[in-house]
Amino acid sequence: MSYRGRAKKFLKSQNISIGDIISVKKDDAEYRGMLLDRAEDADELHIVLKMDSGYNVGIALNGSEVKLLEKGDKPEINLPPLDIQRDPEKMDEANISGKAIMNILSENMKPEFWVQSARAVADEITEGADGVVVAHGTDTMHYTAAALSFILETPVPIIITGAQRSSDRPSSDAFINLMSSVAMAKSDIAEVTVCMHATENDNQAHIHRGTRVRKMHTSRRDTFNSINSPPLARVKDGRVKIIDKTFTPRKRGECQLEVNDSLEEKVGFIKSYPGIAAELMDYHIDKGYRGILMEGTGLGHCPDHLIPSLERAADEEILVVMTSQCLYGRTNLNVYSTGRKILSSGVISVGDMLPETAYVKLVWALGQTNQLEEVKTIMQTNLKGEMDEKSSSKYFLRDYGE
Amino acid sequence: MSYRGRAKKFLKSQNISIGDIISVKKDDAEYRGMLLDRAEDADELHIVLKMDSGYNVGIALNGSEVKLLEKGDKPEINLPPLDIQRDPEKMDEANISGKAIMNILSENMKPEFWVQSARAVADEITEGADGVVVAHGTDTMHYTAAALSFILETPVPIIITGAQRSSDRPSSDAFINLMSSVAMAKSDIAEVTVCMHATENDNQAHIHRGTRVRKMHTSRRDTFNSINSPPLARVKDGRVKIIDKTFTPRKRGECQLEVNDSLEEKVGFIKSYPGIAAELMDYHIDKGYRGILMEGTGLGHCPDHLIPSLERAADEEILVVMTSQCLYGRTNLNVYSTGRKILSSGVISVGDMLPETAYVKLVWALGQTNQLEEVKTIMQTNLKGEMDEKSSSKYFLRDYGE
Repeated sequence: MSYRGRAKKFLKSQNISIGDIISVKKDDAEYRGMLLDRAEDADELHIVLKMDSGYNVGIALNGSEVKLLEKGDKPEINLPPLDIQRDPEKMDEANISGKAIMNILSENMKPEFWVQSARAVADEITEGADGVVVAHGTDTMHYTAAALSFILETPVPIIITGAQRSSDRPSSDAFINLMSSVAMAKSDIAEVTVCMHATENDNQAHIHRGTRVRKMHTSRRDTFNSINSPPLARVKDGRVKIIDKTFTPRKRGECQLEVNDSLEEKVGFIKSYPGIAAELMDYHIDKGYRGILMEGTGLGHCPDHLIPSLERAADEEILVVMTSQCLYGRTNLNVYSTGRKILSSGVISVGDMLPETAYVKLVWALGQTNQLEEVKTIMQTNLKGEMDEKSSSKYFLRDYGE
Repeated sequence: MSYRGRAKKFLKSQNISIGDIISVKKDDAEYRGMLLDRAEDADELHIVLKMDSGYNVGIALNGSEVKLLEKGDKPEINLPPLDIQRDPEKMDEANISGKAIMNILSENMKPEFWVQSARAVADEITEGADGVVVAHGTDTMHYTAAALSFILETPVPIIITGAQRSSDRPSSDAFINLMSSVAMAKSDIAEVTVCMHATENDNQAHIHRGTRVRKMHTSRRDTFNSINSPPLARVKDGRVKIIDKTFTPRKRGECQLEVNDSLEEKVGFIKSYPGIAAELMDYHIDKGYRGILMEGTGLGHCPDHLIPSLERAADEEILVVMTSQCLYGRTNLNVYSTGRKILSSGVISVGDMLPETAYVKLVWALGQTNQLEEVKTIMQTNLKGEMDEKSSSKYFLRDYGE
């Protein structure tokens, strides 16, 4: 096994091997799970357990009472994502406390859970937390990051992190992400951000604005990327270095904590495609949806034959918001005749905002007011770094203009 | 103006300036339009017209009869995309003939137009064309490229190209793309490919497999990118250089021309998102859709509460195909419990195939046979380089492993 030094010696003395089921008592908590292998470059003070609930925790041996419950085989690597809770791995370093908010797979997240998460985070801040790290499954991490960005006005850093599967080193991915999140939580940047691997190497993480980030790969550790902007910062060796010098983040203590968690769940999400039927739009209107996020083609287009349904949506005070399925770049509906017809039908477009972020923002904006014009203004105003007046075409794929 | 040498001298002699409306007679064709500025690095033998129909053509002055119709102002740059037709710009070089197939904006493309385009291309091949270049608007170029890939078995190269807007050099984008397409059309690679700018510089183009390419930026010239594979080739100075050495393209003459153009238009395209309602799936079932392409989260997930509707779809012989909205990477529904439940409900997943390509393939596959099991086999078999058994995680963003 790859455990070294004190951890190796201790495990050997207890006849505990990787794959064994053990219990670990530490402070008031008791953890039960399978001992996992450790990252090669990890310290010799922690062990990693795979819990029954599916997530992994790292626990410092110092002050822990460890008991072998059952000998096991070396496990196949098949790790579920971290669920929403804070990982106790870094308890020793920074006076950290952990709490499980909910235990669901992230693909099952929905707007009501955003509210629960936001309230739990707010409770921690009210109780004096200097920063909050939220562990989250990666499938929908970016949707939740955008949701917390809009729901919370925060005087402290809020960082969402997690782990991608890694077939050779089960825990290392989570470990660096969490270490880097804690470093960010101690910084002066009071924004909702996502902290995940910067590259395939296990030595640095990127900090992304919660409204600019997207999961771009099914399995790589560096799956999360800022779109239309560079990452906000890089964390290496515990130090946070700003990359995006054009963005002025809110500073610690600059605002009071606020929780604006009224949401409108009846929001549709339609991607335009060749062959799309106008009746799909009508379906959403008939079903009482109050908003529709559209992922158009190119500069923000959909086929001409949808226009009567777009007009009907406008007549019934249903707001249709246009983004682009290109993901990079910005909508511009004034260039071509189709775009101008779409605009005339009452659709608004939101420039370089990501479709997923715009969907979350629409769910939130429709919850903030019943006045359609106010919703339009909210959608077209930059609130949390989610859009930019200027063209951002220089940031494309991994060209951050560094 | 930037016209040089013979072109400059000729235009001056005729008192023709940029922005003037002119007519050009050449061979049997007459072109009427506004004289546009020329790329700085272009030759001195061609002029560029913006036609009433919205697209630009480059015409060799040699053998042309040019007449000034109306003096105009230097135009604002506001060019619509090229429509589906071949550009006569390169007539002098390679014995090229041009034909307009249809004149629609690419956002209005739909499956029946894929069939028209495929038949028109096939007619050219039957009549002896050694290669076919199709000019196409960029919004849905990748959908059409995938469609022609599946519909046609081709003994010659078929290249789809177009132009992104360029505010400083109206014609240069189209010019290099077209030059490079013609070079590719003369090559031995009998595949359906997309040829567009490789970088922001105006000196080289990438050749992408028609089933691997996606528009990734609303406005940049290098908007088209191969996903999960490197581009097939690069064209510079008229020379085609293979980049993707793992892919074995079909060679010229290797197969007979075939047109398999039976399609099933009742195919839905659903993106999973937090807040998605199961009734959206039911709507597609009730409306008689025969297939549904789903863009899941992460490895190919959707919320648990959709599963009864997925089972209902399977009961009614409606095929649901899972891809990932991450775009990069590959679906794997065996990793987590949600994925396994989705698989058990009858959904199939298609690895590293792009969602847009998988949608087009599903439209095509459902047209080829009424046997559901055969459709599943078709969807999970690599036919035109659209999927790969091996992991393709090393190709991410612009890391082509070169």
